[in-house]
Amino acid sequence: MSNAAPRTTGQDRLWSVDEHLEDILATVRPLEPIELQLLDAQGCVLVDDVMVPVSLPPFDNSSMDGYAVRVADVTGASEARPAVLDVVGDVAAGQSELLHVGPGQAARIMTGAPLPPGAETVVPVEWTDGGLGEGPVTGMRARAQAPDLAEGQVRVYRPAEARAHVRAAGSDVREGDLALAAGTVLGPPQIALLAAIGRGTVRVRPRPRVVVMSTGSELVQPDEQLTGGQIYDSNSFALTAAARDAGAIAYRVGAVADEAETLRSTIEDQLVRADLMVTTGGVSVGAYDVVKEALTSLGEEDAEGDGDEGEQGPARGVDFRKLAMQPGKPQGFGSVGPDRTPLLALPGNPVSSYVSFELFVRPAIRTLMGLTAVHRPRTRATLTTGKALTSPKGRRQFLRGTYADGTVTPVGGAGSHLVAALARADALIVVPEDVESVEPGAEVEVVLLG
Amino acid sequence: MSNAAPRTTGQDRLWSVDEHLEDILATVRPLEPIELQLLDAQGCVLVDDVMVPVSLPPFDNSSMDGYAVRVADVTGASEARPAVLDVVGDVAAGQSELLHVGPGQAARIMTGAPLPPGAETVVPVEWTDGGLGEGPVTGMRARAQAPDLAEGQVRVYRPAEARAHVRAAGSDVREGDLALAAGTVLGPPQIALLAAIGRGTVRVRPRPRVVVMSTGSELVQPDEQLTGGQIYDSNSFALTAAARDAGAIAYRVGAVADEAETLRSTIEDQLVRADLMVTTGGVSVGAYDVVKEALTSLGEEDAEGDGDEGEQGPARGVDFRKLAMQPGKPQGFGSVGPDRTPLLALPGNPVSSYVSFELFVRPAIRTLMGLTAVHRPRTRATLTTGKALTSPKGRRQFLRGTYADGTVTPVGGAGSHLVAALARADALIVVPEDVESVEPGAEVEVVLLG
Repeated sequence: MSNAAPRTTGQDRLWSVDEHLEDILATVRPLEPIELQLLDAQGCVLVDDVMVPVSLPPFDNSSMDGYAVRVADVTGASEARPAVLDVVGDVAAGQSELLHVGPGQAARIMTGAPLPPGAETVVPVEWTDGGLGEGPVTGMRARAQAPDLAEGQVRVYRPAEARAHVRAAGSDVREGDLALAAGTVLGPPQIALLAAIGRGTVRVRPRPRVVVMSTGSELVQPDEQLTGGQIYDSNSFALTAAARDAGAIAYRVGAVADEAETLRSTIEDQLVRADLMVTTGGVSVGAYDVVKEALTSLGEEDAEGDGDEGEQGPARGVDFRKLAMQPGKPQGFGSVGPDRTPLLALPGNPVSSYVSFELFVRPAIRTLMGLTAVHRPRTRATLTTGKALTSPKGRRQFLRGTYADGTVTPVGGAGSHLVAALARADALIVVPEDVESVEPGAEVEVVLLG
Repeated sequence: MSNAAPRTTGQDRLWSVDEHLEDILATVRPLEPIELQLLDAQGCVLVDDVMVPVSLPPFDNSSMDGYAVRVADVTGASEARPAVLDVVGDVAAGQSELLHVGPGQAARIMTGAPLPPGAETVVPVEWTDGGLGEGPVTGMRARAQAPDLAEGQVRVYRPAEARAHVRAAGSDVREGDLALAAGTVLGPPQIALLAAIGRGTVRVRPRPRVVVMSTGSELVQPDEQLTGGQIYDSNSFALTAAARDAGAIAYRVGAVADEAETLRSTIEDQLVRADLMVTTGGVSVGAYDVVKEALTSLGEEDAEGDGDEGEQGPARGVDFRKLAMQPGKPQGFGSVGPDRTPLLALPGNPVSSYVSFELFVRPAIRTLMGLTAVHRPRTRATLTTGKALTSPKGRRQFLRGTYADGTVTPVGGAGSHLVAALARADALIVVPEDVESVEPGAEVEVVLLG
């Protein structure tokens, strides 16, 4: 017997879009960190500050291909009166045993190679005869072709100041510096820095595993034959793609039949690979809306046996609500299973489910990743349209539109089954709850779908 | 013996950034299309126009949970004088055998279910007593709980016009319409439309397979121990991540030693999985710049045997150049192997290679994908800095900066080894060839790294 208080079904009142979103974001927590190989951590959020273990560069090194010399030996050098120095050998990048450069001597040095002891500066090869005795050269001869140029004499035609063309040890970062702060999102340049300081793995929040499940006995997989009353399942494809786009690892489970027991067991099976469950369909007021039926009882069963303190996560069970929103009025949110996996139950109309995903699921996925920028960017735009938009009083409407250069143009109508118009849109036009009509030329809020 | 004309080495003159880019974009061609499963085609470019094979919705259906009735039977209905109708059964979504609704009759209908023959309109369940005889209800009772409500009587409290709450067949898209045009990039809403019209696979240009190879005997893998003269390999990590970010499937080959034979055989081995090869390092004027050495001969060997008409692709061989650019002066571009796989050889300094990637490799990858938007977006910004920027005459400089709200602030110096500053930047500041100094407050061009 459960001693849990009955969970409010929320059916009695209309929730605002913001209340529903706040409830989700107050419940969903960033995933536990894991140590990942650098390239597996791309796009993830760093959990700890990363300090620099060894200065970069680790040693003084040449920024040019040229000759490492002493300053006094090239002072006053010119094309008319070149400094002539004895070449003592090559210093290549990666070389650990270094030559000593004495007075009157030069070491041929490659970009990135350590400045050898005794040398004070580097003259680029273009300021010399490259050892060929025939005036200034444009580059070095490959060692394979001309091994003898690592010795002999070199003519230097220009002087160099101390430490010219030398990258000082620690001039990039110093040991003990903060390399990257906790919370940094790891893109290619951040991965470059982590590799450069020798970090092969890094602690980040992993990408959430999201199971997307469409429900409805009318749904048929693409490429199969439709019979009477059937339509193709598009939600499971669209939302799996959208979940990946948001940063998740997404698994598609297509077209589960409207049967509470089937649905319940499918969800239970899928929980093992889910950090977040998303369903579409079956959440409205109809007699066959079995998602509601199945999840309500799944929540109740789970609540039995270990009390209702909820210290390990959100209270169990899924709450079904009506939102002051169009499209997307019926919504469910809660948690299921032994790990209290968060679950969002979206409506089944394709446009409703997609808009609901953008407004509620995407921020949930990005919160699980530990990101702080969880929402799509918004902007203000001038409405370009032939006739006024109308919107039901008391509901926040999200119309599909195309945005360009500060203007937005509606595409298609308000119908939540208009998939073709959705595929042409790149923005949502927001009409607030207290607005019933928007005139052409008015300024409106726009969600950029990117 | 080859009858190929010797390929110009390009070492004699300075190439502009635009000339080098034009050469790349004139050579690289979009990949051959393949048929992919819908979710595997995410982010790819559609090759053919896709037409609608069957109208959407395929049949008239209800947009609400409610009752399908005849208009005349509910005319004048009110709460005081409800219309009382006989419920003949349920019409659920996906149901193919439909009831007939006669005069004085109603069928309980669910959202998405086909409008049954005889019915002319739908009254939402909220306008009825839901068959309970106790005034207006907020929803239907689940069939599992109350199977008897599919029969008996229903009171309707409001009239409905013909075809109210009915989505007409073909109101989304009609058979024969253009669903998506060739060239469309497939995001979640486009995938939704393709699934909705029954397309399970689609012909697109695939993501290019890019092999990223860093070269240099000084390079050590992260997490290993550095000894004298060594540094960590960061380029192979950064550019593999950047290639993925650009849309490619990228393979990393780390730290190949500066030995022409090793390098040549590694490249030959990797060609089998490459649509594009990218190397870093070994392209400058030094005596150990073996990428140049290895690739020049690789090109020559390849050119033997089948003439030089170049009709199957770009001329073979890799051309090494000096660009009027900082960082990134030494660059190589050409093609290698039997399939004339395009190859970009980038300089080895971490900042040089990353900037070169953004300017040259990213557009090449996106061209292979068939995208038309191949470049990073650019904008104008006001330079915010304490002192003037200086730039070498005759070279286009790309400095790292942070962009916000129309202003850009330089981070770090011009040194091409400054990885830490690169990791803090989100933009490149462009200083044109003929500009040697930019004052604080001046307007500059900015490449947004996104």
